[in-house]
Amino acid sequence: MQAEILSVGTELLLGEIADSNAQCISQRLKETGVDVFRRVTVGDNKGRLTEAFKEALKRADLVIATGGLGPTSDDITAECLATALGRKLSFHQGAWDSISRRLIKLGREPGDNQKKQAYVVEGGGFFENPEGTAPGQFVLTGGKLAALLPGPPGEMVPMLQNHLIPLIKREFKDLVPLWTKDLKLSGLSEALLGETLGDLMEQGNPSVAPYASLGDLRLRIAARGKDLKESKEAVLKTERIIRERLKEHIYGENDDTLERVCGDLMAKKGLTLAVSESVTGGLLAHRLTMVPGSSRYFKMGLVAYHPAIKATVLGLSRDAVEKNMAVNPEVAVAMAENVRALAGAKIGLSTTGFAGPEGGTPQEPVGTVYVGLSHPGGSSHYRQAFSGSRARIKEYAASRALYVLWAHLTGHDV
Amino acid sequence: MQAEILSVGTELLLGEIADSNAQCISQRLKETGVDVFRRVTVGDNKGRLTEAFKEALKRADLVIATGGLGPTSDDITAECLATALGRKLSFHQGAWDSISRRLIKLGREPGDNQKKQAYVVEGGGFFENPEGTAPGQFVLTGGKLAALLPGPPGEMVPMLQNHLIPLIKREFKDLVPLWTKDLKLSGLSEALLGETLGDLMEQGNPSVAPYASLGDLRLRIAARGKDLKESKEAVLKTERIIRERLKEHIYGENDDTLERVCGDLMAKKGLTLAVSESVTGGLLAHRLTMVPGSSRYFKMGLVAYHPAIKATVLGLSRDAVEKNMAVNPEVAVAMAENVRALAGAKIGLSTTGFAGPEGGTPQEPVGTVYVGLSHPGGSSHYRQAFSGSRARIKEYAASRALYVLWAHLTGHDV
Repeated sequence: MQAEILSVGTELLLGEIADSNAQCISQRLKETGVDVFRRVTVGDNKGRLTEAFKEALKRADLVIATGGLGPTSDDITAECLATALGRKLSFHQGAWDSISRRLIKLGREPGDNQKKQAYVVEGGGFFENPEGTAPGQFVLTGGKLAALLPGPPGEMVPMLQNHLIPLIKREFKDLVPLWTKDLKLSGLSEALLGETLGDLMEQGNPSVAPYASLGDLRLRIAARGKDLKESKEAVLKTERIIRERLKEHIYGENDDTLERVCGDLMAKKGLTLAVSESVTGGLLAHRLTMVPGSSRYFKMGLVAYHPAIKATVLGLSRDAVEKNMAVNPEVAVAMAENVRALAGAKIGLSTTGFAGPEGGTPQEPVGTVYVGLSHPGGSSHYRQAFSGSRARIKEYAASRALYVLWAHLTGHDV
Repeated sequence: MQAEILSVGTELLLGEIADSNAQCISQRLKETGVDVFRRVTVGDNKGRLTEAFKEALKRADLVIATGGLGPTSDDITAECLATALGRKLSFHQGAWDSISRRLIKLGREPGDNQKKQAYVVEGGGFFENPEGTAPGQFVLTGGKLAALLPGPPGEMVPMLQNHLIPLIKREFKDLVPLWTKDLKLSGLSEALLGETLGDLMEQGNPSVAPYASLGDLRLRIAARGKDLKESKEAVLKTERIIRERLKEHIYGENDDTLERVCGDLMAKKGLTLAVSESVTGGLLAHRLTMVPGSSRYFKMGLVAYHPAIKATVLGLSRDAVEKNMAVNPEVAVAMAENVRALAGAKIGLSTTGFAGPEGGTPQEPVGTVYVGLSHPGGSSHYRQAFSGSRARIKEYAASRALYVLWAHLTGHDV
């Protein structure tokens, strides 16, 4: 059972609006157990749209198009589907009654202008549109289903959910929904991941796929068995294998973030945190305070950006601050220790480094980052080299600091 | 001259991520004068991806694909383009040198795992990727251009802008670009914008379109005349009208950000800045330090998150800190004044408020934000009410603080 999604609208091809419909339909179909094999976007052009329908109907069992159902002359989606099927459009009294009722409710007179919207592909049916005047429509032919939904997401989403998905479930029996689980990882590179999990990433079902972003990694395990129970068991079995291999990097699941997981651990243990930032310039505090309720454990952040501030406000020695422009292990540790003392917090965390594009030294080039950690059991520092834009180095450095914090809170090695 | 965009990735078809690349490429091509006739999304499947390349190359003069250039076995985009063209992939020493340089810079050993990324379609070239290890690549054949860009937007966007668009302009002469100019605005609502510029926003050419994001507003003026000169003149005429009407809100053009414009002003005037944040939790310092060279004027940031820190580190009175949980005008002003003194800076800027979802008081509900400003000429405070998520309120509050700073530096009223 294969599906294709067709997004219709010249404004999409011009990049004027995002195609949120295609993503939304993809998600709903995945949950329903329908595989989407292709999405196509075309403009309001008769030849190209008709051709796109013909191709999609040749390949797929289910074709869902959005957009171009309005009353104006460039709304041609229904006409093009009819042409692709070798049929005509015919006036549908039920659709017209539905449109008329809605217009009257809006205090408007149903006129010839709207009548066009009551024409459906011969032999097809229509979906009510309580959110607008354009009804949806569908046609079943030769075991295939083609459906047209309106373009505005506020009209499309309820019609998809309330009418089209139930129709799909009725017409295509034996759909088995996909079971997925996401693991969240930090502190390892995509290349290392490939080496460690290459065998799992090459197997088809359950599939294991990484989605990396700025020091954070989402690993999606997805399985489709003969029923939900079998799918779930297959996912959990793969999860166990991954956990054995990468235990010290798996900090959470699904929508967990490093900052929230660290926050929950600190709140549970009654710990408090203060951070002192140089290279991350406030981003570390920003990420920590994105977590609702972070004021329970986050006491303060100090962005000691100017070297003099590291001496005057944080009390670091002039010598340490001047060495490599304050990018060195002693400064990282002292920043963590001193902000911890200043705030009266249990844990101190710090970052120093060169975010670029200018700066750096021969020993410590742009991208060099030191993370410092201070807690009642002692202090430590961690060096890492990142590359890329200033924004990227800041994000990686903040992720690295949070990973150091998480490893400390959970007793893992960094 | 027709183009097609091919988005590659099963995660797109599953609706797991939005296809922001396709929209971005559409916009850039429109500006360059290239018409996009179709966009197609397919998964990481050899047969279907090869087929999609073949179809696109039959119809279009320019085919741009994104995604699937990584080192893992499901990254097959280059291989499929080669198959579609009836060519092989061949090892490209220049691409490998570029990847190796980047890996060494990251402190990693270039290994066989990454070597795959140095294979390009026979006869083709590669694009450097300063943001990641996957180079882009392109091949020119029979007057057509096919290009492959990486999937992560942070890598795709600069490669498109710096390499592919210039290549397109060289290979396809006679493109008539759209002439566009962006004005950057702050400190006004979209509704007010509609009232002030409604007449211009309704006219077709030049078009005037607002793109609002979190307290920042981009106003795009676009015109296409019979040549560039005519287009440019039409844009400049509209710009003059807008500047007359909204002078005190226009802080810059094109890629200007409030933080960079403020930074340039401070650097030029020899001013220094310290910030003290509560509700923005580090975001204000993060935005200020996103500007390269910000250490010239940005001395320090203090995230005084816990109320006690406002008293102990910043030296605020207990009374002020306790009143409305420190969300009040006196605290905003004292935070700005005291951080300015602590850092020895010319200007102090502060934020306090309730980011939610919990918290707030009957008088100062969630979304209430005070910005404080302190400078040699005196101190002032500004109250604003925002709504929405925690992330949204933090962003709006940081933008508000930067707008207050900009208005002060330029002598405008807030």
